[in-house]
Amino acid sequence: MKDLLAEYRSRFVESPGVVAYLDGNSLGRPLAASVDRIAAFATEQWAGRLIRGWDEGWLDLPLAIGDELGRVVLGAAPGQVTIGDSTTVLLYKLVRAAADRDEGRTELVIDRDDFPTDRYVLEGIARERGLTVRWIDEGDVTPDRVAAVVGPKTAVVVLSHIAYRSGFLADIPAITSVVHDAGALMLWDLCHSAGVAPIDLDAAGVDLAVGCTYKYLNGGPGSPAFAYVRAGLHLRQPIQGWLGSRTPFAMGQGYEPADGIRGMLSGTPPIIGMLAMRDMVALIDEVGLDAVRAKSIALTTFAIELADSRLPAARLATPRDPAHRGSHVTLDHPAFESIMPKLWARGVIPDFRRPDGIRLGLSPLSTSFDEVELGVDAIAAELALVS
Amino acid sequence: MKDLLAEYRSRFVESPGVVAYLDGNSLGRPLAASVDRIAAFATEQWAGRLIRGWDEGWLDLPLAIGDELGRVVLGAAPGQVTIGDSTTVLLYKLVRAAADRDEGRTELVIDRDDFPTDRYVLEGIARERGLTVRWIDEGDVTPDRVAAVVGPKTAVVVLSHIAYRSGFLADIPAITSVVHDAGALMLWDLCHSAGVAPIDLDAAGVDLAVGCTYKYLNGGPGSPAFAYVRAGLHLRQPIQGWLGSRTPFAMGQGYEPADGIRGMLSGTPPIIGMLAMRDMVALIDEVGLDAVRAKSIALTTFAIELADSRLPAARLATPRDPAHRGSHVTLDHPAFESIMPKLWARGVIPDFRRPDGIRLGLSPLSTSFDEVELGVDAIAAELALVS
Repeated sequence: MKDLLAEYRSRFVESPGVVAYLDGNSLGRPLAASVDRIAAFATEQWAGRLIRGWDEGWLDLPLAIGDELGRVVLGAAPGQVTIGDSTTVLLYKLVRAAADRDEGRTELVIDRDDFPTDRYVLEGIARERGLTVRWIDEGDVTPDRVAAVVGPKTAVVVLSHIAYRSGFLADIPAITSVVHDAGALMLWDLCHSAGVAPIDLDAAGVDLAVGCTYKYLNGGPGSPAFAYVRAGLHLRQPIQGWLGSRTPFAMGQGYEPADGIRGMLSGTPPIIGMLAMRDMVALIDEVGLDAVRAKSIALTTFAIELADSRLPAARLATPRDPAHRGSHVTLDHPAFESIMPKLWARGVIPDFRRPDGIRLGLSPLSTSFDEVELGVDAIAAELALVS
Repeated sequence: MKDLLAEYRSRFVESPGVVAYLDGNSLGRPLAASVDRIAAFATEQWAGRLIRGWDEGWLDLPLAIGDELGRVVLGAAPGQVTIGDSTTVLLYKLVRAAADRDEGRTELVIDRDDFPTDRYVLEGIARERGLTVRWIDEGDVTPDRVAAVVGPKTAVVVLSHIAYRSGFLADIPAITSVVHDAGALMLWDLCHSAGVAPIDLDAAGVDLAVGCTYKYLNGGPGSPAFAYVRAGLHLRQPIQGWLGSRTPFAMGQGYEPADGIRGMLSGTPPIIGMLAMRDMVALIDEVGLDAVRAKSIALTTFAIELADSRLPAARLATPRDPAHRGSHVTLDHPAFESIMPKLWARGVIPDFRRPDGIRLGLSPLSTSFDEVELGVDAIAAELALVS
């Protein structure tokens, strides 16, 4: 398998003893540039500039990195993206803001198979605001299935671009259009797609989006999330903090939200946590998302072919059509949970998702085809020992 | 002035060109150990352990550091403190949880002079829940002034232990008792006191507390905040995320909050951001908070004496009685705003707070008496040039 992006693997820090890292969609590897950047920040910026750093760029960093992310990864013009908080907290802010927009719209729509945090946030908001959650229950999220549950009572639809378990890739433009036809707002969760699949939020007219930055954006464990709010969409979020106010340093009486995306901020930006992602965004910019996507498809295709031939007892939970597939491949087998510790012990590191799925997360800039083959072979070998 | 803690200053990273750093209560200096810890984490933990790190300690880190902070700084037994989110977001969660506890209690109490985020959060919650904000308007927060506004309708009282502007130090046990006599919950904001003034939350029967970790806990710019919830107080917070659920990795249907402090979590913990504070907590443990407080009083006393003699035109906004004073001293003068850039340009770095206050934040483990004198002299010299 010809790997056109092979040269970029050397930009990442080595992990001694790791034979195959197949969980880049849970936690991306650090770029060497990020390790250097973080160390330099601590001495040169934090120690060197001290409080002056806030005036010299830190305060603007959430929106500055947001703009970089918007341009390179999200298809978003400047001024619509910010970095901060966790995905959960940003989901809460945006869904609350969307749900509070129109009293007559009392339903929140989500996929039954969506990631727990997304569902829990919506259920919590429904509970506190007296709203109803409408579920998409039938399987992969298609425009038809969305059309069947949205209507004049829908306030906001929350869906994942790429499903965390199956890897199904939803059609952002088509579904957004269906939701808009119902007069509702569309919020995309981009956790599993940001940095690995082309996204064009502006072109699709998406209203809101969130996503995490520690997967294909390699921001480090628990790095802060991002939020996108379409320019011109005026929503008020509930967590009123000083840095989301119009004049934070006036420290005056009464909160007045800042215009635009800045109004989505609440507290002091988590600066050290948002440094590493800049290097990955720069690398994606250098390589181009189309090339990243091409290798992603090649990697997942290769993984599925290997699974077909060497893991015939496993069930493929991921779409075979690459047009409907993200950058991870999930295989189900009742014995998989029992072999996970053995795989990790031999340096083969996929993820496990209940009830019985091994998930191979393939990060195009850091994962090699050899790793995929070593990984599938190790799974086959361990499975043979317990079957 | 004999400085019994002088030896500890060398543990902090030097800041070239900085003559007097007098803003440790906005952003504490980094300990050299923290710079090393962060760099080592990136290579050894993030790159070395990759996703396995979550099972090997990262997931428990918010509560593990919370327990350290509880023991050394907050007077809190284990299992009541967690690290994560910003102060603003934690305030929102805790005040919402407290306000939702008893429908008959419809009033939230706060000091008119409290830090903007605290006021804004309460005003936002009052707005969305149909509650009323009752203000303490008269000045420094004393038990009598609190007693005058609390009653059978009070849900929760939110006050700062040390006022961000004046440095007034409130009486936690006495005020908590007044609030409890009214049947309400007490939430202390410890942003300006954690790590610099003795606190005993358990002994005072405090219900809730929050605070930031980038001031006297030296966690770095925007490091995550902490929250304390008294054991046995069962509150439900509104931002339902996967890591606050009872069984995050079951990824099942329906949110059930984890017991105790873990139920206050929402999203994935911000690991890199919470590393540095461990070194400062360890150093405070080594030195002892009583010794830290003794030097804090000596530093602020020295600053006030210098101001009296060399800045007679400035008005002292901070209590003269050290028993009522935190670790910063605020001086007001109409010309102070205009001299701030000149002070910074000469490497003298206090903070400025509207309308006309220069705030000297004195961090006992990293601030010397010489720095205080250099700082006050520089202010006097610049003031003489414009007066």
